[in-house]
Amino acid sequence: MIEATGTLPPASPALWRDRIETPAVLIDLDIVERNIARCQKHCDELGLAVRPHIKTHKLPLLAYAQLAAGAVGVTAQKIGEAEVMAAAGITDIFISYNIVGAKKLDRLRQLAQAAQLTVTADSLDVVSGLATAFVDAPRPLNVLVECDTGMHRCGVATPEAAVELALQVHAAAGLHFAGLMTYPAPGAGTGAMAWLGAAARLCRDAGLSVEVVSSGGTPDLYRFRSEPAVNEYRPGSYIYNDRSLLASEACEEIDCALTVAATVISVPAADRAIVDAGSKILTSDLLGLDGYGFALGRSDISIPQLNEEHGHLQLTGDGPALVVGQTLRIIPNHACVVSNMVDHVHLVRGEHYVRQESVAARGKVL
Amino acid sequence: MIEATGTLPPASPALWRDRIETPAVLIDLDIVERNIARCQKHCDELGLAVRPHIKTHKLPLLAYAQLAAGAVGVTAQKIGEAEVMAAAGITDIFISYNIVGAKKLDRLRQLAQAAQLTVTADSLDVVSGLATAFVDAPRPLNVLVECDTGMHRCGVATPEAAVELALQVHAAAGLHFAGLMTYPAPGAGTGAMAWLGAAARLCRDAGLSVEVVSSGGTPDLYRFRSEPAVNEYRPGSYIYNDRSLLASEACEEIDCALTVAATVISVPAADRAIVDAGSKILTSDLLGLDGYGFALGRSDISIPQLNEEHGHLQLTGDGPALVVGQTLRIIPNHACVVSNMVDHVHLVRGEHYVRQESVAARGKVL
Repeated sequence: MIEATGTLPPASPALWRDRIETPAVLIDLDIVERNIARCQKHCDELGLAVRPHIKTHKLPLLAYAQLAAGAVGVTAQKIGEAEVMAAAGITDIFISYNIVGAKKLDRLRQLAQAAQLTVTADSLDVVSGLATAFVDAPRPLNVLVECDTGMHRCGVATPEAAVELALQVHAAAGLHFAGLMTYPAPGAGTGAMAWLGAAARLCRDAGLSVEVVSSGGTPDLYRFRSEPAVNEYRPGSYIYNDRSLLASEACEEIDCALTVAATVISVPAADRAIVDAGSKILTSDLLGLDGYGFALGRSDISIPQLNEEHGHLQLTGDGPALVVGQTLRIIPNHACVVSNMVDHVHLVRGEHYVRQESVAARGKVL
Repeated sequence: MIEATGTLPPASPALWRDRIETPAVLIDLDIVERNIARCQKHCDELGLAVRPHIKTHKLPLLAYAQLAAGAVGVTAQKIGEAEVMAAAGITDIFISYNIVGAKKLDRLRQLAQAAQLTVTADSLDVVSGLATAFVDAPRPLNVLVECDTGMHRCGVATPEAAVELALQVHAAAGLHFAGLMTYPAPGAGTGAMAWLGAAARLCRDAGLSVEVVSSGGTPDLYRFRSEPAVNEYRPGSYIYNDRSLLASEACEEIDCALTVAATVISVPAADRAIVDAGSKILTSDLLGLDGYGFALGRSDISIPQLNEEHGHLQLTGDGPALVVGQTLRIIPNHACVVSNMVDHVHLVRGEHYVRQESVAARGKVL
């Protein structure tokens, strides 16, 4: 049941505590709505198109809410995620990934019948594969040249290499050079914007139209200021936020929409307890932090260690004792990866239950 | 299709390289069969019952292979995993976890109609919940008292506390005190065996029968020698092995049955490449190691960083260059958690494909 209007469902009279078994992922829709509105307003003020990354939530329901707020389309990381979004009726999808290999190119071409697709390329190898697959496609595939503006993941290394590859895309019959993208540009002052500006200029000098220059990353979302080099932003985590964004002061605790509800299953000593949320739901992602999460309302508790089904809590003694059966809510280090660990999440509004929602794009590694 | 005989399926003429899309989890059944046989033989020689932990593979097919080799039953960590194994017809299941909360106790009682269940307890709170749920059950629930012999996770803290709790279990109408268990006992010389021996003696002195004293852990499996204090072993990872077990010299490379096949999707520099296996399949588990996996046959490559869909490869320059589209096989740091990341694995025998197998007990966090 997807509300393709983008309206999120209301609370029920029931309390979530009465409805769930732990460990469970709770998504507070009141906070989600605030986060979506805030991001859209911010980007509207900067004249930036918003193309949210759905890897954070993996839920068509929330993709529709983002589109209803004003997003121009969505971003997915894998064809499998894009397939789920297209099956839910979403028609403008950027897959921010190099699509490589015959089986994947077949799926991409199939999917292009259902949605307007854009993909990346950062090498002639990738462009050649795309070109072969789309040479006789009914409509051309949009391709953004991925630029390494300092993060050293994928991407061409220089603005000169970007225009060279852009010309190859432009020359391919089934491909449309649509512009440039970068993996979350490093913070201000690192030269990423100058890099993109130079590359776009070179492309235009070569006679190419550069429709889109796309950046992303929630950490810098609200620090991002008007910047002529970029006209699209792909934030992901902003919809939920998490402990890593709290640590980087990109959000506050009341902005954290995703929490993991956990039950204390053992209190072996006064200063230690074990909860039923381990790495199988919180994941082992540290993102440079100490510990594996923050227990809401319990700054006296740290989570120094996880096993798959056990979260180790360390108590400083400044808070009340924990008892077996007690429920805690934990803000995870990294919300995106938590979404991928569960078949469904529980939608809530404050203490009230909304409903269970299947994580339709979970586990789409292909 | 489960071969309840425990016989694993044969190879097909097809090669796995022609059958899969990456990233993909490959399970080599030739290696699995060797690992199962070796463990069973070792434990038979020591007079230890084997009760394999299915959290590593989450596959009824392999649980049956373990039982066919001589295992007395299986171990699961969650009720959800045990439900999958019971649905596949397995009838002797130890859930090595404190079951807490009304909803879980309801499910446990339901499941106890289909299989002979054993659970743990390490506090009176846990025992009380179990006792209430099983007070009028058709057959009593087996309970092992969990002992903290040095790992500081769950478990009673002293042999005296163990016998005290054992007496509470014994006194509860619906419960049967079946013995003691410990989370993988620390290596020799740490006193874990003396701890368990003392607790068992105290229990017997108190008039209790101690049928089972159960330890576990693959790292110490083949270092384990005849030990009167323990009569059951619960190894998990031994069936697949992984990079952490390689590092601790508990196995060799040819014993590693689980690998992740990955495709190079970008070669942005001569000394760097990106594969399509990131933390969404390899996970962020480090287990004290540097890097996130070992590329088979490529000791010149390290994997210093993962993003969700990107594995960062660092090349030292001693090996051949990588090219876009090339497939690598990676031994992950921790095999158990990789099984949980995919809806299905690909069974292989050497280079030959066997078939795809659904990971039936994946994602069972409840």
